[in-house]
This record gives sequence, structure tokens and C-alpha cells, in this order.
Amino acid sequence: MEVIGNLQLMQERSLALRKEGKIIGFVPTMGYLHEGHLSLIRKAREETEVVVVSIYVNPTQFGPGEDFDRYPRDLERDRSILENERVDILFAPSDKDMYPPDFSTYVEETKISQRWEGERRPGHFRGVTTIVAKLFNIVLPHRAYFGEKDWQQAKIIKRMVRDLNFPVEIIVLPTVREKDGLACSSRNTYLSPQAREKATSIYKTLKKGEEWLRKGWGHKEILEKMKKELEEIPGLELEYLVLVDPDTLEPLQNIQKENLFLIACRVDGVRLIDNLCVKLEK
Amino acid sequence: MEVIGNLQLMQERSLALRKEGKIIGFVPTMGYLHEGHLSLIRKAREETEVVVVSIYVNPTQFGPGEDFDRYPRDLERDRSILENERVDILFAPSDKDMYPPDFSTYVEETKISQRWEGERRPGHFRGVTTIVAKLFNIVLPHRAYFGEKDWQQAKIIKRMVRDLNFPVEIIVLPTVREKDGLACSSRNTYLSPQAREKATSIYKTLKKGEEWLRKGWGHKEILEKMKKELEEIPGLELEYLVLVDPDTLEPLQNIQKENLFLIACRVDGVRLIDNLCVKLEK
Repeated sequence: MEVIGNLQLMQERSLALRKEGKIIGFVPTMGYLHEGHLSLIRKAREETEVVVVSIYVNPTQFGPGEDFDRYPRDLERDRSILENERVDILFAPSDKDMYPPDFSTYVEETKISQRWEGERRPGHFRGVTTIVAKLFNIVLPHRAYFGEKDWQQAKIIKRMVRDLNFPVEIIVLPTVREKDGLACSSRNTYLSPQAREKATSIYKTLKKGEEWLRKGWGHKEILEKMKKELEEIPGLELEYLVLVDPDTLEPLQNIQKENLFLIACRVDGVRLIDNLCVKLEK
Repeated sequence: MEVIGNLQLMQERSLALRKEGKIIGFVPTMGYLHEGHLSLIRKAREETEVVVVSIYVNPTQFGPGEDFDRYPRDLERDRSILENERVDILFAPSDKDMYPPDFSTYVEETKISQRWEGERRPGHFRGVTTIVAKLFNIVLPHRAYFGEKDWQQAKIIKRMVRDLNFPVEIIVLPTVREKDGLACSSRNTYLSPQAREKATSIYKTLKKGEEWLRKGWGHKEILEKMKKELEEIPGLELEYLVLVDPDTLEPLQNIQKENLFLIACRVDGVRLIDNLCVKLEK
């Protein structure tokens, strides 16, 4: 595996690969790789000729008081995982190259980024769209892979790609879960064993919501019952639990063919998000 | 000359050209071509293998109450000019393709776009950076050509390209002027013969400023004297006349090696901008 830290080198490498007619698959990550990342990397390995994975904990997508400094990092472990997955290029740039002191240009999605995560984490999505635009211009992939766990993020990136005409195909893959249903996330490492146990209630409750949806219950009733279940977990603080349109992310007035539960909560202080899309035969 | 209206077709064409190893030169314009545009096109013709010129009057860079609707358009005339210049591809997209109804992603430079034109035309530079980012992603040029007449715009585009890592080299060429010194601009067509005559005082005054700079006068004195000259022209309303650092566009406290005059004014209601960069032997 080739390891590249320098922006210009990475871009020149990609330009040369494209000239050779190679199809580039790209998985942008913040490192501390888990099974969710691996599913993206394996799909890229399957579908494209040159697989590039970036590891970069992007400061602009963290707000003040968020976990940028303590975000888990282990480049050596990640590197050997990527070797095992037969990744071709690891791109690991430095902050000072990515954001020179007089950096001043941002990419901002202004509609679907406003609600939910955007509301709770001001500036977060602007940081995400900016870094993804930068990485696309440096890595110049044909296809880029994202996880459904960050549903809103994936929608925003797809919108950005359409609006700004990036010549990149966005592939969104299903959330990978632990055996007990907890969505894989680098932030799970923050959980104490007790908190880890409590965190399983997130997916359990989403699945109950699905069951009730399929039984034909009304959405208000469902959300109320789900919230009640979660309130019973000590140390679990709900930030939002909503039923929305999977495309617009606007709250649903009526049950549709496709319905998306979005949830964010803190478990013993650790912030976690998850979602579940329920398709009904209507 | 090939004429392409469709975004996808243009992008596919450029991807194919790049795969063939062709060097693409790009001149983005709003049409109604003048000698300023031609100097950019000729440089592109000289330096690159495939020259693409876009003609698109971009609605997002016009504010409410500005001249979007009456901006001069003459595609047939432009087309024959471009044929004569041996341009390879004219890209002329439609509004509905460029900005679908739920368009929501913008590129924004947040520092050097704040002053001068940015202050007088809120949203203007956001529109410019957004359309240029889109065009770069569609046309995928190796080099793109801009005129020094829009000095602040050129600086902002260079900053955007650096910050977002577009694999495009930005070439900025000197302002082309009419025989009497008036900077070429599609908006000159708005000027009545009387206003056209008065408008020559813009460049004349800039040249006087240069002369006084070279004589070693202080910058306050120079700007005052220049303003006084301009105030004597009936129907000429000054918006700003400043002496700034050519890179940061911040007002100068002291004369430097490189000094940039920036001016915006209305002549009988027609808004015109110009600038002059003065390099001193210091």
C-alpha cells in the first residue's frame, strides 16, 4: 500500500491514474476504522480498480466543545487494517496542508443541512461538505462510498455533488451493526461497559418503531411510545427522535411508503446517532 | 466549433478529452464578447489544445434590482466570433439545468470577498464562486483564464481554487482597454454617447493617481485629489476609490512596492468598475 501525505502528490497520482484509464474508488474516513468502514472499502475494492482511503480527522466539522481533541486516533492499527483489505493508497494529509492559516472558502448546503444534526451541531455540515469537496478535488475519484448510518450527511453530500456537478458517483451502503444491533461508530469507544449496554436500546427501540409502523399505528403514537421506552433508560438523554421523509428529511404528517426514523441521544454523556428506514407495502 | 448545451454531455466530453491526454483551456464568460474576452481566448488557444468557452449569464451573481434581465445577450454574434477564434467548444447551458428548483449548495469565500464589490453587491461573489466551481466540475479544464479588470473576482477565484484544491491553473490577464482607456466591459453598451465620453475620466484619473504615486506623494493626498477630479464630472457618482494591497485587498496605510487602485462608480446611472496596479522601484 502506498501512503501519501502530500496534497499535490496525491492529486498528481490521481490525475496520472485517470489518464491511464483507471477507475478510482474512494472511501473518506476519520480513521479508527471499524466494520462500517470495511464494508465501504470492500465494496470499493469490488467495484473499482484503484482504492484510495483517506484518514483525516477534519477540524472544521467539529464545533467548539465537541470531541475533536479526544476523537480516537490509531494510524498504525488503521494502516495494517488497510493493508489487509488490499487498499492501494492511504491518503493521510496534515492539518496545515488542508487548512492554511488564511483558508477562507467553504462549501455549504443550505436546505437539508438545516435540521437535526445541523441544528444541534452548528457548522458541522459546512465542515463536512467543505472537506469532502476538497478530498474529491484531490483524490479525483470516479466513485465515493459513504455509510447510511450518517443518513443526513449522505443526503447532503449527494445534493452537493448534484448541485456543484462533481464528476463523482456517490454510493451509500447500509449501516453495519454489532451483534446486539448497535450501529458501528468510532465514537462507540467512548462508551463504558454500562453505557455500551444501555446503548443497545437505541436500535431496539428503532426496531419496535418499525414493528408498530407495520402494524399500522399512527406516527404520533409510535413516536410517543418509542420516547417512553427510551426515557426509562437511566443516563439516556434523547436529543431528537423523529419520523421524516427519507429524501427531504422533513417531518412526516402521514405515514408514507418510505419512512425514516432519525435519532440522536446521549448515553452517559456520549453522543450517538442512528436511523432506520422502513419501507411499507402501500 | 462544437456547441454543447447539456451539462452531462459537456462533462463526458471533457472526461474523454482528458483521457486522450488533451490539455483543456477554459474561458468562462457571460457572453456579449469584447476584446477583453478575446485576449483570454487567444491566450488559451496559444497555450492549450482544446479551448472551451462558456456563455452563461449566471443569475446567482446578480442581486435584486441589478441588471440580470437587461444584461446584453447576442448568442449568434458571439458564436460567429468564437468560430473566427478557432474555439473548439462553446458551452451554453440553460438556467434550468444549472439551477434545478431545489438547488441548495453554494461555494463562498469569506475573507477577500467581504469588501468593495462584496460590500456593494451582497451575494455577488457567492454567485461567482458557485458558478465557477460548477463550470470547473463540468468543463474540467487544466487552465482557466480570467481578466484583471475584475481584480477582486480573480483574487477570490484563485483563493477558492487553492482552498478547495481544484486541479486547475488560474491565468489572469491584463485589462484590455479601448483607445481612450476605458476598460472593455459588456456593460459599456449601456452608456449613452455622452456617458461614454464621461466614462473615460475613470482611467484618466487612475493614470493621474499613478503619476502622483510615482512622484512620491502620500496616499491620502493622492486619493483626495483623484476624488476631486472625479467629482467635477457631472453625472459621475463615486462608489469607492481606494488604494489597497493587491493581494489582501486591505486598504494601505503606507505606499508599498505594489499598490492597487480600485474604483467603482456610476456614470449617468451605469455602474462601472476599474483598477490599476502600480509597481514602484522601492
